Amino acid sequence: MTYYCFLNGKIIPANEAAVAITDLGLLRGYGIFDYLRTYHGRPFRLQDYLDRLRSSASDMRLPVKYSDAQITAIVDELLQKNEVTEDAAIRLLMTGGNSPDSMSIAEPNFAVIIEHLAPTPQEQYENGVKLLTYPFKRIFPLSKTTNYVAAIKMQPEVKAKKAFDLLYVLNDEVLELTRNNFFLVKGNALITAKEGVLEGVTRKVILELAEGHFKLDVRRVNAAELNTADEAFLSGSAKKLIPVVQIDEKIYGSGKPGATTRKLMQLFDEYVSVVSSQERVASNR
Amino acid sequence: MTYYCFLNGKIIPANEAAVAITDLGLLRGYGIFDYLRTYHGRPFRLQDYLDRLRSSASDMRLPVKYSDAQITAIVDELLQKNEVTEDAAIRLLMTGGNSPDSMSIAEPNFAVIIEHLAPTPQEQYENGVKLLTYPFKRIFPLSKTTNYVAAIKMQPEVKAKKAFDLLYVLNDEVLELTRNNFFLVKGNALITAKEGVLEGVTRKVILELAEGHFKLDVRRVNAAELNTADEAFLSGSAKKLIPVVQIDEKIYGSGKPGATTRKLMQLFDEYVSVVSSQERVASNR
Repeated sequence: MTYYCFLNGKIIPANEAAVAITDLGLLRGYGIFDYLRTYHGRPFRLQDYLDRLRSSASDMRLPVKYSDAQITAIVDELLQKNEVTEDAAIRLLMTGGNSPDSMSIAEPNFAVIIEHLAPTPQEQYENGVKLLTYPFKRIFPLSKTTNYVAAIKMQPEVKAKKAFDLLYVLNDEVLELTRNNFFLVKGNALITAKEGVLEGVTRKVILELAEGHFKLDVRRVNAAELNTADEAFLSGSAKKLIPVVQIDEKIYGSGKPGATTRKLMQLFDEYVSVVSSQERVASNR
Repeated sequence: MTYYCFLNGKIIPANEAAVAITDLGLLRGYGIFDYLRTYHGRPFRLQDYLDRLRSSASDMRLPVKYSDAQITAIVDELLQKNEVTEDAAIRLLMTGGNSPDSMSIAEPNFAVIIEHLAPTPQEQYENGVKLLTYPFKRIFPLSKTTNYVAAIKMQPEVKAKKAFDLLYVLNDEVLELTRNNFFLVKGNALITAKEGVLEGVTRKVILELAEGHFKLDVRRVNAAELNTADEAFLSGSAKKLIPVVQIDEKIYGSGKPGATTRKLMQLFDEYVSVVSSQERVASNR
């Protein structure tokens, strides 16, 4: 099967898509992106991702010359042309462009890429995962830049310690994972960082769904709270919610996913079912 | 004039050089590079740059499959083929490669690019420049990664304040500029950061040349010293030494380059003359 992608106005086979080596995304790591997935073949909460793409672009001074309607149409066309039968990931990539002097922003290169969505092992949902704390904070955390140097460099250590990923904790402040948001549960309260993190769409949906069930505690999270929390979990677009049962040496709930985490996983799955059946009805009209 | 570059084993016109959009350098800002210049047509201290490229690559887990002799031969061939008549810059770029899953390191893409060397305005050497302090530290500072997000994002503020660049100062520690090292002069002492900065080749040459003339004080530099120093200057491969006469609101030496800075600029130019005439002789043999 040949995958297709959109690059600068054209739909082309993905394996032919290339950018010049003068691209500021390549020479200077200057680029933004966003990343969402389909459920039952339909993009999930696309408008939230388009809003965030536009916000990241604005923060990084990259002009977006496509309207939301145009990007939506591109996504739809790619999903059809690629004949996606199982759920897929959608990457929206925007770089600093082909710079004349390797420092000035030029006309951005813009790509929409349909990608294989690596399935999350069922075992991670059922048994939870382990995280390693790491002292780092992304420099412009509200923007989804392409800078993942720490995440990639540290992969061997993560694997060697049989961990799922790093949890960024800087100056006693608990932030986020390399590609996911992070929540603690303490009693009836759901605790997550307010600032200094990417505002994930899955995080947003969880806070919407938790309203009425749990106390929402969106604020600065202190490192000491990692030791006193009852439960922990991560959230992300590809992986939904995954229970966290260990952080460094601390083990939560005797090493098993907690009741609040499981309740939220269930609420999220129910929400996805409802939204994606509505989406399917709308797209079949 | 068509510029040529080397990319993954082939010498091709630079405007045809491209990498796949799955390159980890593009998707995740995961890449390293090095950057040197010619004097009188010959690469300056190439071996130092090759050593650093290899060190950055090792730190970032990128395998280098070219020997120093091979890279040197590529540089020589490109300088000849490009018929460089004025001095040029040489960029060595190595990325995380075409990743199968947008996170794992693959076979690196490796490019050698000859670039126009933008001339430094004579006025900057004669009158000095202004810097703005900015709270940041590069995450793996000994490695020359491609991550210049802060440098590029902040350019409008730098320009609006008629500054030359940012000076990174984090937690009261004076580090480096976005692309240059930084020195203070206090009495007979030459002060520069020991750790947490890129070990510039120009910085290294300055320390070699200053030995015997000045006291070398390579150690942690505290932010308070910015206010008590007599002189300041920056150093870099393209720009050599440039006097710094203002940092934020602090003005040095009534706004004129100081005697020690001018002495070091002279020593550096003399050294370049000697080395590049030796290089010319060697390359004509």
